[in-house]
Amino acid sequence: MRVEHLLNYCRVYPCLAGMLLLSACATPRGTGDLGIIIERASGSVQVIETSQRTRLARISGLGDLSHASAVYSRDARFAYVFGRDGGLTKIDLLRGRVAKRIVQAGNSIGGAISQDGRLIAVSNYEPGGVKVFAADTLALLADIPAGSGDDQRRSKVVGLVDAPGNRFVYSLYDAGEIWIVDMRNPRAPRVQKFADVGRQPYDGTVTPDGHYYIAGLFGEDGLALLDLWQPSLGVRRVLDGYGRGRQPLPVFKMPHMDYWALSNDTAFVPAVGRHEVLMIDQKNWKEAGRIDVVGQAVFVIARPDGRQVWVNFAPPENDKVQVIDTLSHKVIQTLKPGKAVLHMEFTPRGEQVWISVRDENRVDVYDTATFERLASLPADKPSGIFFTARAHRIGQ
Amino acid sequence: MRVEHLLNYCRVYPCLAGMLLLSACATPRGTGDLGIIIERASGSVQVIETSQRTRLARISGLGDLSHASAVYSRDARFAYVFGRDGGLTKIDLLRGRVAKRIVQAGNSIGGAISQDGRLIAVSNYEPGGVKVFAADTLALLADIPAGSGDDQRRSKVVGLVDAPGNRFVYSLYDAGEIWIVDMRNPRAPRVQKFADVGRQPYDGTVTPDGHYYIAGLFGEDGLALLDLWQPSLGVRRVLDGYGRGRQPLPVFKMPHMDYWALSNDTAFVPAVGRHEVLMIDQKNWKEAGRIDVVGQAVFVIARPDGRQVWVNFAPPENDKVQVIDTLSHKVIQTLKPGKAVLHMEFTPRGEQVWISVRDENRVDVYDTATFERLASLPADKPSGIFFTARAHRIGQ
Repeated sequence: MRVEHLLNYCRVYPCLAGMLLLSACATPRGTGDLGIIIERASGSVQVIETSQRTRLARISGLGDLSHASAVYSRDARFAYVFGRDGGLTKIDLLRGRVAKRIVQAGNSIGGAISQDGRLIAVSNYEPGGVKVFAADTLALLADIPAGSGDDQRRSKVVGLVDAPGNRFVYSLYDAGEIWIVDMRNPRAPRVQKFADVGRQPYDGTVTPDGHYYIAGLFGEDGLALLDLWQPSLGVRRVLDGYGRGRQPLPVFKMPHMDYWALSNDTAFVPAVGRHEVLMIDQKNWKEAGRIDVVGQAVFVIARPDGRQVWVNFAPPENDKVQVIDTLSHKVIQTLKPGKAVLHMEFTPRGEQVWISVRDENRVDVYDTATFERLASLPADKPSGIFFTARAHRIGQ
Repeated sequence: MRVEHLLNYCRVYPCLAGMLLLSACATPRGTGDLGIIIERASGSVQVIETSQRTRLARISGLGDLSHASAVYSRDARFAYVFGRDGGLTKIDLLRGRVAKRIVQAGNSIGGAISQDGRLIAVSNYEPGGVKVFAADTLALLADIPAGSGDDQRRSKVVGLVDAPGNRFVYSLYDAGEIWIVDMRNPRAPRVQKFADVGRQPYDGTVTPDGHYYIAGLFGEDGLALLDLWQPSLGVRRVLDGYGRGRQPLPVFKMPHMDYWALSNDTAFVPAVGRHEVLMIDQKNWKEAGRIDVVGQAVFVIARPDGRQVWVNFAPPENDKVQVIDTLSHKVIQTLKPGKAVLHMEFTPRGEQVWISVRDENRVDVYDTATFERLASLPADKPSGIFFTARAHRIGQ
């Protein structure tokens, strides 16, 4: 409220003026324990806090949020939500409202924020490519079409992550390429392309330290691996046995590759089509064993200390969550939160995990030491859950 | 301001009321990019932000801040500063003032915050032991004397860290023991003691995943190692060559053990008395090599992505900082920030490092990719620098 207005208010309604201001004064609060829950059906998000485990706000008008994901500003005040319909929405967690929203493409799938927090990159299906926006204003800074070689067809872009050095790394589904984009000069991106990485990379991720980029392949077996510390070594194929195999089993849902569950040197990844979690020795990138689980794993996520790995599943086992002990490599707990467990998010130090149970319209909070359910919050068809501690992580 | 007061104000000074409220309305801001700088000589701290690299507030009256350290509340709004004089001060970063201050012992050295964010533990020299306080009120919850066996002498406590499972781990300098305290019931701590870990453990740390606790020994060579995933295996001695050796070299300053600089599987630690940084293979806890540096290393800290390790030094080389490339194991940069470089803190995604240069009354900010100095902030004899992203880390 501007001061002149205040003065007028004072003359007319002396106390009303004060009241208005009083109500406008939000108590200051930290943003380290905040997060958002995607409500996919209603195109809305909830703002929550993990200390008392309550809902702070509900914000609607975000469009199609199926498969939506989010990243956070470096001050952990704003969330950037990537919708399926090409919508990019900047949410003010403290004011509980949309700060800015644009529709930047026809069909998109996730994004990332640069190491310095100044750039938001979105990976698009239609038209294929990556667009880069200023984090503060959402002004377009760069449009990087994903046409491969002379092919003018814009490839679908998947597995977009950030990497140290203000770089973005992503995969071209149709072209079978991995690109590294150096954004030190946001208006003049420098692109490094790696061709023939394998057929139809469908998702990608980066190790928590930003050292390796790994793409999953839909069109053939194996994983495409790029050492971001030494990109000159090129992309190599690892884990040739990994994938759907020669006689593909029915795959109800391709597993997500957007987590890299690491404990000591062992990575835990969902096997494709099989009721197994694969262990990969990250020293030599060879299979280090398999762990039987109850269904086809979708998300395989390590508790922040690496002592546990939590797994959810494709139908018909999507009402369950299993917990693997990374020391014994055994399933130590099977939880049954309810119909359609879609996502899990750990508090940054790992004492709680929040689980979205879509068809029960609930988000449940579990104690990861006792497996006791600590709280349950109503939510409208909840899917992704994202906490502000992501603001401080590489590869988000 | 309470509403009745507001009403009175309105009657007497209609506009003043509004003005007061207006001025009381701070613009909301996120706390993810905040931090504090300890000004040891003046017993004050600065509150800073790393996005624009500016000072937001200066808070005094914190007592003796030599060797002071800090941890953060889980919402990243409050800093808990541990002073040398036994002072424990809770700082409100958003209001820029002291929220609460107690003097809980005669002489203390650091502390930690529990995984759930509810407990603050302080390690004391005089009288020796650990006190645990409620994070919200600083009310005393538990007083754990560090008397060993029948010995009623309270040992100095060092190397206090938090570990998953709401545990605290620390070392008893005089008694040569390591204790694990389970604080699931804050008023009834469960203590597990490990005796004969080595003479005079002088500092300790935990690996970033909270898996291993490592204590440095002042009274003999080697490191004491405790696997917190399997404490029943007990404490073992590793790196027997590590320490001052049989013919001790002059040690100008015992190196800090409160960081565990890890890159892939290699830990980088300061050699004692020698102009070297030691590499330790964390798979077998054996020495994996040595890197020559310009002086006796004090802090050896990994950039968050592990690609660089930054080192500062004891006098007379304490005007320099060297950067080791963890791929080539070579020193790739020598910076000369100025007299008495005391501490370094990385922004959580590693693009900046803040360096306190005590005798120049400056804190310098460097770009870790270009080594260019981005900013310089005046500070009164700055020492420790602590950013709020620590709120989300294990072992703080």
